[in-house]
Parts: sequence; structure tokens; C-alpha cells
Amino acid sequence: MAELEWLDGGITAVPGILAGGVAAGIKPGGKKDLALVYSSTPARVAAVFTSNQVKGAAVVVSMEHARSGTAQAILASSGCSNVCTGERGLRDAREMARLAGELLRVPAAQVLVASTGVIGVPLPMDRIRAALPKLVKALSPQGGRAAAEAILTTDTRTKEAALRVELGGRPVTIGGIAKGVGMLEPHLATMFCFVATDAVVARAPLAAVTRRAVERTLNRITVDADQSTSDTVAVLANGLAENRPLAAGGSGLRQFAAGLEAVMGRLARMLVSDGEGATKLVAITVRGAASRKDALAAARSVANSPLVKTAINGQDPNWGRIMMALGKSAARVEQDKVSIAFDDERLVERGMLREGARLDRLREIMARPEYAITVDLGLGRSEERVLTCDLSEEYVRINGKYTT
Amino acid sequence: MAELEWLDGGITAVPGILAGGVAAGIKPGGKKDLALVYSSTPARVAAVFTSNQVKGAAVVVSMEHARSGTAQAILASSGCSNVCTGERGLRDAREMARLAGELLRVPAAQVLVASTGVIGVPLPMDRIRAALPKLVKALSPQGGRAAAEAILTTDTRTKEAALRVELGGRPVTIGGIAKGVGMLEPHLATMFCFVATDAVVARAPLAAVTRRAVERTLNRITVDADQSTSDTVAVLANGLAENRPLAAGGSGLRQFAAGLEAVMGRLARMLVSDGEGATKLVAITVRGAASRKDALAAARSVANSPLVKTAINGQDPNWGRIMMALGKSAARVEQDKVSIAFDDERLVERGMLREGARLDRLREIMARPEYAITVDLGLGRSEERVLTCDLSEEYVRINGKYTT
Repeated sequence: MAELEWLDGGITAVPGILAGGVAAGIKPGGKKDLALVYSSTPARVAAVFTSNQVKGAAVVVSMEHARSGTAQAILASSGCSNVCTGERGLRDAREMARLAGELLRVPAAQVLVASTGVIGVPLPMDRIRAALPKLVKALSPQGGRAAAEAILTTDTRTKEAALRVELGGRPVTIGGIAKGVGMLEPHLATMFCFVATDAVVARAPLAAVTRRAVERTLNRITVDADQSTSDTVAVLANGLAENRPLAAGGSGLRQFAAGLEAVMGRLARMLVSDGEGATKLVAITVRGAASRKDALAAARSVANSPLVKTAINGQDPNWGRIMMALGKSAARVEQDKVSIAFDDERLVERGMLREGARLDRLREIMARPEYAITVDLGLGRSEERVLTCDLSEEYVRINGKYTT
Repeated sequence: MAELEWLDGGITAVPGILAGGVAAGIKPGGKKDLALVYSSTPARVAAVFTSNQVKGAAVVVSMEHARSGTAQAILASSGCSNVCTGERGLRDAREMARLAGELLRVPAAQVLVASTGVIGVPLPMDRIRAALPKLVKALSPQGGRAAAEAILTTDTRTKEAALRVELGGRPVTIGGIAKGVGMLEPHLATMFCFVATDAVVARAPLAAVTRRAVERTLNRITVDADQSTSDTVAVLANGLAENRPLAAGGSGLRQFAAGLEAVMGRLARMLVSDGEGATKLVAITVRGAASRKDALAAARSVANSPLVKTAINGQDPNWGRIMMALGKSAARVEQDKVSIAFDDERLVERGMLREGARLDRLREIMARPEYAITVDLGLGRSEERVLTCDLSEEYVRINGKYTT
């Protein structure tokens, strides 16, 4: 995509998008924990939510609000996910939308809400009520970073991405912020990804390209195979770029989709590389599969295997565990047709260590912070890729003492 | 089962069964690594092997040898699994059976072989050839413990169990040994379980009760959701008890099956409690499910969730993660019908923290080395139970440096 120009910043790189983040006192230690993204004009919205059957109150309310196809703001809190909190949780989530709407002078139904953090604890609504006016005052075209900070939980870094793409001669901007980084598997993750664009794009094509971009980026990553109850992806399109409306089947929509996928792809990569306790970012590609479903099942089985992930952590060239993970997957595998390479080092051929394979080279590659593991099943032409990270002692430390 | 009498010892508690274990030099440090179990008379055999599509050479050979329905010996090595070793691996596995058969004066086809350890490395056959005569000489009716030692890999303890059951007035003994303890999930595990009995039982009923006992014990445990390429369960029945042959549908077979299940259940429990890095043994029961399939899917999802397992490790009463794991499972779950108890402490009702739930009591329970988590989905009458352990920093340490 020669037409893509990466920009500094994130969601507020988009014209007409203001954002802010403040410390409301939900998290301890005065950390920012309440974020607001606001579009100065009503925007089309496309949203994707967790497929976990246990859903947070904010997810339930935002699903209702997104149904209209338009939205003007996203209010997100971190430190408490407002999940498994019953009627009270739903009342609290609705009140968040209502209060933000009053302060922003938009209907409550135009406000999406999202909450992440500990499950099973009610939101400290008095603190949220007290902080909201301050948060609305803090909205600014430079506020994207503060919002990106305010949605973090165990993340160690903010995640922002923005780019410009020419659509029919007009510049269109796409920018987003995201957070992870545990309870993170495809379909989706303890993950927020909020993206805005000034593109003019109708409801149905926006929904279609959003679903596709999520499928190809955020649904191709894993930290720990666990799946959050709060995941929310929302794309706001406020139309300020005044491009010719992007229509299904047109080249403009294809270019926009590529830009959206690039932004989400960059954010997805940032999520994995900041995975809880992660020290490695590894791309697992499975090609030569009998079907795409097989390719994905095999790639996910390798990407989620605790034994593969601990070997990546220990930089231990224990390639047999990749064979094990392939063999236990739902994909068709014939062990004597499997090849495996680490970056450009071909290691396994016909299911065995290749004559002349250099384990010292393999150790060098595994010492890198990022590398690729490529599997060829030798059974067909289908290919899929999943990004994963290692499983470290730090992951266990972080998650052994999360609520205490 | 008032008729069950637990005995000391393991597989050699069974009349006519000799065993031994020696150090052949496959493992470093002079540890025992070659085990032999021998029945003084030909025995019926029932065997169950890994369902991983990548299978070790010993599994392939033992599947062939078990097909006849009789066997007289099991030769097992630890330290090298002889998996992904191609034609050479198959030749080596066949040679192991042939050499043991020659020394024992039984046909090679009457010898099962099993190898566990690192994948992708050929067996040091010269050392095995040199050690075999010594191993055969070491066979004794007291050798069960040595054999149990010689099959261990990352296990920290031997696993032996034996019991006596009266069948139609005649005492019948069932005894076994097992090893784990990583790459360990249902269907099966990096796991050996060798059981012998002096019962007279025909081929078909022996196979049926073995499958059922495996399904209800060894297939209901998990350490890390990974699935080995070498798993082997074999039951030898040498008939020396001279009981009336156990026939399908008879009460004798039911009692024998209960005894077999008790021995395998005890060994399975030992496997989980010695899981790599494990400090806790937790029984996850899901009841009130719409179907047994749902109950099992939900129980496995909880038992394998890294976030649930790290919370168990950290003794962190983070019950929301159990809700998360239920919700992401393939089972039907309605969050406002879910109850959860830890031992006798009811914690969650209708998907929320119970009014008056005592988190201090929960912390007390989680400090125990063993406890039960019971989930009621409130949707039906089906129930399943899975045994799991915690995910510790030690698990990561063990597996980050396995081959190096």
C-alpha cells in the first residue's frame, strides 16, 4: 500500500475527534482510569464485542447503543470491569452513558461505554460521577495519549496508531487506541480498540470492513488463550473528510479497508508485544494446510501451547513441542509431511530434524525479541498467521496476585 | 465398594508380575531410565494410546503388538521419547521389543514398548542394548518401585497403586504404576500407566472396562492442556487368580471394573498432584449442565484456563475468572443462573457474589493443598469432574529449559 502514510499520535490525529483521560480513583495510586473519546459531529459507528457468553454490563449497554448505527462518544473506565454485577451493574453502565451524554449534550444512546478490570466488583459510581465534568473539560485534539493511558490495566505501554490514506484525491485519516494485555485470545480479548476516521462511509460497508479488519488482526493474536468478558472494538466515522461516500465494491472502500486493517494490525501487534510478562513477539504461520480452517486451528494450537510458549521464553530450541501442538490440533496433520523454519533457518523436514540443521543458529534466532515460526503442513495451499508471545514467570506473578 | 482393599506397592503386588528398573545412561546423572514389566505367563492385554496425530515410534509399534490381544512384557524408557525420528525411530523401537523378547524368551510381538522424554532425538541404542541383560536380571516381585522410578521424567515422586477385590469368593489383585507430569491433558497425556492383574478376563470385556476406566480417570485430568505424543496405557491380565472368567454384564466384571477404575483413579490423582510445578490439587465439578458434553466442556475450560490456574497458584479469590472461563467454553451458559462454591463455601449465586459471602473463608480454603470448586450452571442435570493443578512460576522454569 504505497498510499498509506503513517502519522504520529492515535485517535485524535483524526479531524473532529477530541479525547481525554483523567484519574477518577477507580485504580489505586492516582493513575488515569477514565477515558473519553468524542466526535464533534455525530458519527457512523461499527462495533464488535466479546463472544464470551458472560458479558459485562458495559458490553450489554453498548450493544444496544451501537444498534442505531451512529454514536458520538465512547466513555471507558479501567480498574473495574463491571462484570457479574447484576442489575446494579446495568444501572451503573446506563448512568455512565446518561451522565456523559448530559455533559456533552448528546443523547445517552449516542454514547458507548466500556469497562475493564477486575470482575465481580461494582463500579465506584460516586468517583465516576465526580470525575466526569473534569474529564469532559479535558477533551482536546491532543488528548488521545491521555485517553490511551486511561484505558490501560496490566499494560506497560500505551497503544496508538494513525495513518492517512488518499481516497479519490482526498486525504482521509484513521487513528486508534487499544489496550490489552491478559485474558487475551482471538474472538476477542480483554481488549479495547477504539478507532476513529473522518471518512464518509455508509453503515453497512463500515460494519463489513470493520468485521473483516477485526477478523484479520485482533482475532489473530493471543496472549494466554483466555477470553475476556469486556472486549469492545468500536470504529467511529464522522465524515469530515468529505470524500465521495465509500460504496461496497468500490476501490475507495478497498483502500479504506486496507488502511483500517493497517491501523488495527499495528495496534494488535502492540497488544501482543506488551502481553502480560511477554519478552518475545513470535509470528506463527501455518501454510500448506488442507483448508484455511485447518491452517488457523494448527496456528492457534501452536500459539497457545504452554509448552511452546515456555520454550520460547527460555529460548530453548525444543521444536518437538511444535510437532506436538500441531498433532493435537483439530487440523489434519501427517507428521512425515511437516516442515518447520525459524526465520530463514529450515529446521524440520518430513517431520524430522533436517540433516545439517544448525541448532546454534536456532539459538541465535530464539534470542531475538521478534521472530517468525513457519510451518508447512505439506497437504494443501491454505495459510494463516497468528501472533503470540512467550509464557514467562512474570505472567504467573502478575496473575497470581491480581485482585489481592 | 466395601470389597476393595488397598495394598502397599504397585504393579508387582500382582501375582506372577515381575518388574525392574535400571540406569542405562539415557538420562544424565545415573538416574534409572529403563523399566521392564514381565508377566510369568502370557497375559491378555488392553491398551490405549495418545490421540495426538503425531505419534512416537514406540506408540506405533505397541499399537501393532497390542492388536493380538495378548502380551507378556512392557519395556519402557525415559529421557528420550523417540518421536519425530522417522524410519530410524521405528527400527529402534522394533529392536527394543526384539531384544527384550530374546532375553525373556517370548516373541517380540508379545512385548510392548514405550518411550518418554525429549522429542526429535534418536534413542541411544548402544546404551539400551548394553543395559537390557542387566535389566532382565533385575526383574523381581519386589521390582515394581524400581520400574516406577525408571519411567519418570519431570515427575518428583513415583506413582504406584494396588488393591485386592473379591470376585466370586476369589481374591483378585490389580496394581499399576504411572508417570506424568507435563504435556498432560485428557486424551491423553505425557503419561504412562501400566496396570497388571491376575484376573481371568476375556479380551473384549477387558478392552471395554479399560477404555471406560481411562475415560473416567486419566481422561479427566489436566496439567497444562498440552497433549503428548507418547501416551500409553496398558493393562495386562495374566489369569493367575483362576477366578470364573469375567463376562460382559456379570456382577464380577462390574466389580473388577470398579477396582480397575479405583487403581487408575488413584494414579491419575497422583499425576495431577505431582504436575510440573504444581502446589495445589483442585477438583473442578460442573453440575446442572444441559448435557454431559456441556458439563465436561465447561469443567475443562475452567481447569485449563491460565488465569484460573495462576489465581489458584497465588491463592487469589478472583472468582470472576471462573465466570470468564465458563463463558468462553463451548457449553451453554447463562450467566445469571451460575452458582460457584469453594469446598463448602457458597460464593457466587445467580452469577454474582452472594450477599454475605465470606472472602476471608475463601482465602482460608484456597490456602489448602487440595480443595474443590463446584459450579452449578442451573440448566440441567448433567455433571462432570476434572482434576487440575495450579500454574506456577516453577512450571515456566521447568519448561523454559527442558532440552538445554
